[in-house]
Amino acid sequence: MKIAIAGSGAMGSRFGYMLQQSGNDVTLLDLWPEHIEQINDKGLSVEANGEQQFIKIPAAFPKDVHDTYDLILLFTKAMQLEDMLQNITHLLNKKTAILCLSNGIGNLETIQKFAPKSPLLVGTTLWTSELVGPGSVILNGSGYIEFQAINNVSHETLTVINNTLAEAKLNPRESDNVLLSIWKKACLNSVLNSFCTLLDCKVMDLNKSEYVPTLTDKVVLEFEAVAKAKGIPLTEKLALTAINAALAPDQAGDHYPSMHQDISSGRRTEIDYLNGAIALMGRELNIPTPANELITELIHAREEVTLK
Amino acid sequence: MKIAIAGSGAMGSRFGYMLQQSGNDVTLLDLWPEHIEQINDKGLSVEANGEQQFIKIPAAFPKDVHDTYDLILLFTKAMQLEDMLQNITHLLNKKTAILCLSNGIGNLETIQKFAPKSPLLVGTTLWTSELVGPGSVILNGSGYIEFQAINNVSHETLTVINNTLAEAKLNPRESDNVLLSIWKKACLNSVLNSFCTLLDCKVMDLNKSEYVPTLTDKVVLEFEAVAKAKGIPLTEKLALTAINAALAPDQAGDHYPSMHQDISSGRRTEIDYLNGAIALMGRELNIPTPANELITELIHAREEVTLK
Repeated sequence: MKIAIAGSGAMGSRFGYMLQQSGNDVTLLDLWPEHIEQINDKGLSVEANGEQQFIKIPAAFPKDVHDTYDLILLFTKAMQLEDMLQNITHLLNKKTAILCLSNGIGNLETIQKFAPKSPLLVGTTLWTSELVGPGSVILNGSGYIEFQAINNVSHETLTVINNTLAEAKLNPRESDNVLLSIWKKACLNSVLNSFCTLLDCKVMDLNKSEYVPTLTDKVVLEFEAVAKAKGIPLTEKLALTAINAALAPDQAGDHYPSMHQDISSGRRTEIDYLNGAIALMGRELNIPTPANELITELIHAREEVTLK
Repeated sequence: MKIAIAGSGAMGSRFGYMLQQSGNDVTLLDLWPEHIEQINDKGLSVEANGEQQFIKIPAAFPKDVHDTYDLILLFTKAMQLEDMLQNITHLLNKKTAILCLSNGIGNLETIQKFAPKSPLLVGTTLWTSELVGPGSVILNGSGYIEFQAINNVSHETLTVINNTLAEAKLNPRESDNVLLSIWKKACLNSVLNSFCTLLDCKVMDLNKSEYVPTLTDKVVLEFEAVAKAKGIPLTEKLALTAINAALAPDQAGDHYPSMHQDISSGRRTEIDYLNGAIALMGRELNIPTPANELITELIHAREEVTLK
């Protein structure tokens, strides 16, 4: 397939690399000049299992490519999605399928606004990757993709995409309720990421406090109420099962989650696509979401006192 | 007057020193062995205007004194008040007046539980002091006391106490609504202390975020609702005036407030006597206080992930 990666950060670079290795024609698109320059000059540096390779793979600004692609993988952070879609409008058409695996609630609606006629697939992934500098990623561990065709996707297109991902060893799994998975992951991140940021602690440290389950329940019950109104079968029980699994002693990491890292590095966070999405929908639906609203405002305040 | 200071930390030592200097018979009571030993061995080290003096003043454990005092100044942190009252029950009687100037909501009720027949006065103070080690305080700046007789206080007793405080240059002012002052100060601290702790910032940094006024309003409106139900005339306007004055560029300090310091030092905070008092009363009165409740739980979680 002819594939463009729109947003070639840590995860985009990993997926681009794996899809090229399995024989696809891949182009990495990004808005970071040093990153593009480095990849085109020296190749993409890929470190896996302690070995470093330089991979020849084309990288470009979206405005500089004008081909027709079979598939665009959208891989920005949620808060950069709209900006990226504006940069690739000339690449969007009813033949080019879009697959988005970004975290957070609301990505689907944003893409549909920009590409109402495109074949659209969304999902979640447990693959991880680390961008260590321009043109350089470290790949660790394994993962899978859970995805679902949302609209305008023919059976044939679905089969081709599924096979392409499988050949790249990306372990795709078709889901019949991927929105539930997206919401469940967003709920998990609305607890782990937000709490670790406000409590200034690592994921494993959340187990030290008897107040964390009480706080978790507040966040989760509001997620459940809004999900129900939106027709998404996320229940308190499903969410708590995922959260408790992530907090289990053998799983809860000795690391600060990404939102904590964002704050420490003076970057904006994904809060508006996690707790903030629930607070916004709650307001629209007249469902009280005081916990998610207050947490969203506290995280934004934390961004502002840190950034400026 | 024969005066005992029950809780002779930073503020208790300052008041004890000033009251002794003006001719009163003062005893410092405390539960910290090194502090008592140091004061009795070398005197209380008082540093003021860059000069250090060693002041001879008796210090003791509460259990070791059995005199009858004219006045007991209760000067513990709110969360240690009950413990101190248990330690001085043998000193409480209807002749010994009690004056409490500690921060936080609920101190009055706690004292009344232990000393229902004692002449009781409560208030707030803007005096400050720093305990730099056992037996050693630094005094800076000036201040005043605002206080009111609550119950069992004769006109004569009130006059004597007022004169005694005035002679010690403690600048007493009688108030006819000291509970309003106590609640207003608690509301101010429920914003400044709690926010700086959760946002990990100095008081002046709160001015950097546009979300802080929104968050402040949530806390203040719940204070107003609970205060109204309790017959205390704290309004949103009064509270915001005090908060905005404290956040004014020439006032907002380049320092972390006490609760932030408590967390950094692994100590428990006063949260249950600030936002937590409003959340508890809100529950009892069936008044929604989701913001103060969530903030209380987040601060407790912060204590626990930091302490253990």
